Amino acid sequence: MADDSNETSKSGPLTAVGLNCSLKPSGDSSTETLVSEVLDELRGHGVTSGPVLRVAASGVLAGVTSDEGDGDGWPAMRSEILAADILVLGTPIWMGHPSSYAQRVLERLDAFLGETADDDRPIAYDRVAVVAVVGNEDGAHNAGAMLFQGLNDVGFTIPAHGMTYWVGEAMHKVDYQDLEHRPTKTREATKMAAMNAAHLARLLRGDGYPTEAS
Amino acid sequence: MADDSNETSKSGPLTAVGLNCSLKPSGDSSTETLVSEVLDELRGHGVTSGPVLRVAASGVLAGVTSDEGDGDGWPAMRSEILAADILVLGTPIWMGHPSSYAQRVLERLDAFLGETADDDRPIAYDRVAVVAVVGNEDGAHNAGAMLFQGLNDVGFTIPAHGMTYWVGEAMHKVDYQDLEHRPTKTREATKMAAMNAAHLARLLRGDGYPTEAS
Amino acid sequence: MADDSNETSKSGPLTAVGLNCSLKPSGDSSTETLVSEVLDELRGHGVTSGPVLRVAASGVLAGVTSDEGDGDGWPAMRSEILAADILVLGTPIWMGHPSSYAQRVLERLDAFLGETADDDRPIAYDRVAVVAVVGNEDGAHNAGAMLFQGLNDVGFTIPAHGMTYWVGEAMHKVDYQDLEHRPTKTREATKMAAMNAAHLARLLRGDGYPTEAS
Amino acid sequence: MADDSNETSKSGPLTAVGLNCSLKPSGDSSTETLVSEVLDELRGHGVTSGPVLRVAASGVLAGVTSDEGDGDGWPAMRSEILAADILVLGTPIWMGHPSSYAQRVLERLDAFLGETADDDRPIAYDRVAVVAVVGNEDGAHNAGAMLFQGLNDVGFTIPAHGMTYWVGEAMHKVDYQDLEHRPTKTREATKMAAMNAAHLARLLRGDGYPTEAS
Repeated sequence: MADDSNETSKSGPLTAVGLNCSLKPSGDSSTETLVSEVLDELRGHGVTSGPVLRVAASGVLAGVTSDEGDGDGWPAMRSEILAADILVLGTPIWMGHPSSYAQRVLERLDAFLGETADDDRPIAYDRVAVVAVVGNEDGAHNAGAMLFQGLNDVGFTIPAHGMTYWVGEAMHKVDYQDLEHRPTKTREATKMAAMNAAHLARLLRGDGYPTEAS
Repeated sequence: MADDSNETSKSGPLTAVGLNCSLKPSGDSSTETLVSEVLDELRGHGVTSGPVLRVAASGVLAGVTSDEGDGDGWPAMRSEILAADILVLGTPIWMGHPSSYAQRVLERLDAFLGETADDDRPIAYDRVAVVAVVGNEDGAHNAGAMLFQGLNDVGFTIPAHGMTYWVGEAMHKVDYQDLEHRPTKTREATKMAAMNAAHLARLLRGDGYPTEAS
Repeated sequence: MADDSNETSKSGPLTAVGLNCSLKPSGDSSTETLVSEVLDELRGHGVTSGPVLRVAASGVLAGVTSDEGDGDGWPAMRSEILAADILVLGTPIWMGHPSSYAQRVLERLDAFLGETADDDRPIAYDRVAVVAVVGNEDGAHNAGAMLFQGLNDVGFTIPAHGMTYWVGEAMHKVDYQDLEHRPTKTREATKMAAMNAAHLARLLRGDGYPTEAS
Repeated sequence: MADDSNETSKSGPLTAVGLNCSLKPSGDSSTETLVSEVLDELRGHGVTSGPVLRVAASGVLAGVTSDEGDGDGWPAMRSEILAADILVLGTPIWMGHPSSYAQRVLERLDAFLGETADDDRPIAYDRVAVVAVVGNEDGAHNAGAMLFQGLNDVGFTIPAHGMTYWVGEAMHKVDYQDLEHRPTKTREATKMAAMNAAHLARLLRGDGYPTEAS
């Protein structure tokens, strides 16, 4: 399946798309907060973005193709991902793992494995991904590891320090969005992830991965 | 939330329930095949079971409570899980991970953390879980690790050799259900998991975990 | 390789052995603290134990056999593991993972896959394992998942709520051993893991897993 | 700790260093084979490299500082890593996990978190890492996930398709180095990882990540 959407991002300012894989389709969300903070930082580096996409509210069907048919919300989300230079994949932690919606996004991205752009390169090439992970407690490193590996499998590039996260002390129950102050460490991680993602996306926009023949 | 369903399983033959976390709501499924093989082996040890429950076809909503309201298929599935002595949790591998439906099941089981039975013990106590993992290639150990940890977090006991699995060679595409012969190694793993699960469930039915006071 | 050590544990009080997989061979260790707390709780359930074994100080060589030759500290540690009904495997978290010494222990346990006791059953059968994981921050669920899966692969049984852990808030630096008060949640998890391990070990000592023929 | 070694790599051809985290200090090694294949492909892209470094033979001590004192083999290995533009981290799979030596390498790299180069940037910046994972069976995705996350945590950049791997069918025992033919899929993955690593390292050498002030 050829797709020209990765051409359309090649001029103008760099763009990013944020995905919120919260289990809740609406309302307050710590994941939304952290993803938005990454997008804010990206704006400081000249990267534009639209509203965060909420997977739970987007009708993304289960499956592993790029279009699962009637009512599938994935094709629209997929177009936004392909139109952007940077993907900010945000997930809450449940049971120490990425959410089922984050895993569903990976399953839908799985179709990228067989898809190439007009230039015959894998369709996700030259795109950068960072992850934003948030939970009441423990699980961020594992969630980050699983998302990095999945995103890299399908062709995304991971910038240095490509994860920001927050979790509380073991078995605690406070939400990130309810913290009185933004934790300094997480704020710094967010800054680094955004700064590096913007830099790397700019490099790859200017000089993308070669084709196998080259 | 007190629940008497774990009383109902305390007499008569041991019972098992099989869950198939395939992404497909119907049709052939390698996961179904392997879960069924575990249930067949369990029958040889006197453990009865009904049809495998297909998560993708059961309307299990996203969430982390025991009932997410209108149209939620989880309460019925939850009752079947609590009525059984043994849970056989089967998942395909996608991107090296358990499927999004397997993660959804864990998210719904998360509510068990706050639920006790009439005897004030955690509601899942005395129940045994085994996992059945199947994929075209690589990922079974990680899927098993994540499921074991999630199931154990909410109170299931894991018998010795509590996993059976099959995967093909790296990056291959053959499905388990299409293999000409059942692989000997997987068949042996299935036998062991079933034999040990039945033994352990029998022990725990006869003499369950004590309450904290005891 | 037949081994009669699992016979020797069949009379007298239940016994446990604690392993500390700290990177440091001596001195204070948060992992030691948490493992000792599990052993203390086990004593309250009639389970005796000797001093915690410190892997970093025991000369356990790299490898995957039961004896790697001259100077290998594993055979002695292996004997203590086989002589006990309950293994308490404690690890610090580094980079979100179990320590390299915890992984080394799993690698040495790997040899159990080919070893049977006098009764032809896998050599680790009827033994129960719990894990104790401690870190400055994030990683306990993943460490627990990897240890559960590894221990289960070689024949250990995992009791309900078989993990206790402590970690601090994201990217924080406080050590468990330096906390002014033992955290309530961790103390409760320790109690549950110990209580359930003792119960399950008692059941399995009285009525072990059957042989395949039975 | 300031270090000027990342300056020294800034002129001349790109360089790579291969690490073999086999448990064996010498002799044949499937991991060595796969790491060497990555280095061979890198040479085709103008990237030079010396002999693969064998961690098990290098006296790398346990610890989390950059120099653990007398007899520590890490400082020399650390210098080679910092002198190279590309790190090829190769590990066998044991119990579905990276080897204990791979985890030890991550533990030693942990010190990078507090180290900056003369330009005040994290010391690993502008370096690219790829992973090579090999086992008799299952575990490559998990090993890759854990290595990606650990390497990224300390400042390495992961190129698109940054992993090559081989594993056999579930519970099989054939070694990669003994295969009659190099598997096509693995060979293609090796080519892609090398091509993309070389491209990304070249971009980052020409235009490294900015400092926070910029």
